[in-house]
Amino acid sequence: MTDQVEHKAKMERLKASVDRRIEAAQEEKGLLIIYTGAGKGKTTAALGMALRCIGHGMKVAVVQFIKGAIDTAEERALKSFGDRVTFLRMGEGYTWETQDRERDTTFAQEAWQTVCGFLRDPSYAMVILDEFNIALQQDYVDAAEVVAVLRARPPMQHVVLTGRGAKDVLIEEADLVTEMKQIKHPFRKGIKAQPGVEF
Amino acid sequence: MTDQVEHKAKMERLKASVDRRIEAAQEEKGLLIIYTGAGKGKTTAALGMALRCIGHGMKVAVVQFIKGAIDTAEERALKSFGDRVTFLRMGEGYTWETQDRERDTTFAQEAWQTVCGFLRDPSYAMVILDEFNIALQQDYVDAAEVVAVLRARPPMQHVVLTGRGAKDVLIEEADLVTEMKQIKHPFRKGIKAQPGVEF
Repeated sequence: MTDQVEHKAKMERLKASVDRRIEAAQEEKGLLIIYTGAGKGKTTAALGMALRCIGHGMKVAVVQFIKGAIDTAEERALKSFGDRVTFLRMGEGYTWETQDRERDTTFAQEAWQTVCGFLRDPSYAMVILDEFNIALQQDYVDAAEVVAVLRARPPMQHVVLTGRGAKDVLIEEADLVTEMKQIKHPFRKGIKAQPGVEF
Repeated sequence: MTDQVEHKAKMERLKASVDRRIEAAQEEKGLLIIYTGAGKGKTTAALGMALRCIGHGMKVAVVQFIKGAIDTAEERALKSFGDRVTFLRMGEGYTWETQDRERDTTFAQEAWQTVCGFLRDPSYAMVILDEFNIALQQDYVDAAEVVAVLRARPPMQHVVLTGRGAKDVLIEEADLVTEMKQIKHPFRKGIKAQPGVEF
């Protein structure tokens, strides 16, 4: 019973502290969110956020920059939400698949021009740029230009960038950054990519 | 042009190495996946995986252990997939909201008994236990019992555990572990929780 009383007192103190922090946080704005790092979960975390927005009746754009060659199940699932989701596959595949830097750059530039349209359109509550960090890292798209366009976007629009090796200039600019750190990966244990998990 | 030739040669070598690793990874099995750490993206990464499974026509169970008191938009979105998704909210809220350890334990135990049913049912391709790491950390559910039940589950069934502070015994058991590391969080900048991002 003492245990129970102690637990209650501790939780009351914790609640007071959480409530104070919630009280202090009053600003609302469109967030720039970055999921980076070598661990798994970057793309799926972004797609989970898309699901949240859809559940609120908001409109979402998802643009895949690099994984373009892969036919993904999430594309099928997201498309079932009809006009609440705009889904575009722009790239042709990973750099080691295409082996053609000029071609990769052309595709990324075309994708970026399309994205600029979404970043001017306040009807999109969230714009997800999947593997965009890789396009920036490879200098397919100029990071300074991206920052300028992001700053000029509709004030309540959320933007999510995924991919390894996020550039410092974008981390500086972001409101929310999570590094997905790889602790264990099944590939290293000889387990192959499986539907529902890897694609 | 030399640049282009060098890029192609480098990418050819990289592709050969990736292909060798894909060739070597041939095992298929249900994975135990853990998303842990203090950073954001754990629950959304799990839900993105649910979306992937749904896109493959697979059946998914999602059980929320702790966030039960929150009416979530993702619940609405997932439920639109009909009988491909079983969604259960079992808990009553965070420990600092309920302030009642006995009650929290009772709810977690009830939830776990329901989960045991899913973990015996091969028709579920994926079972997602949201914030389950917290229930284990608080000893609401016994970790050794959980490991035993997980080992006895259908061999192709994937299980995803989310929540901070994953127990070592489960990390040991897991096939895929990502730590979501917080680099930047908007709450600390005075920005409040917003629909589509935080809930």
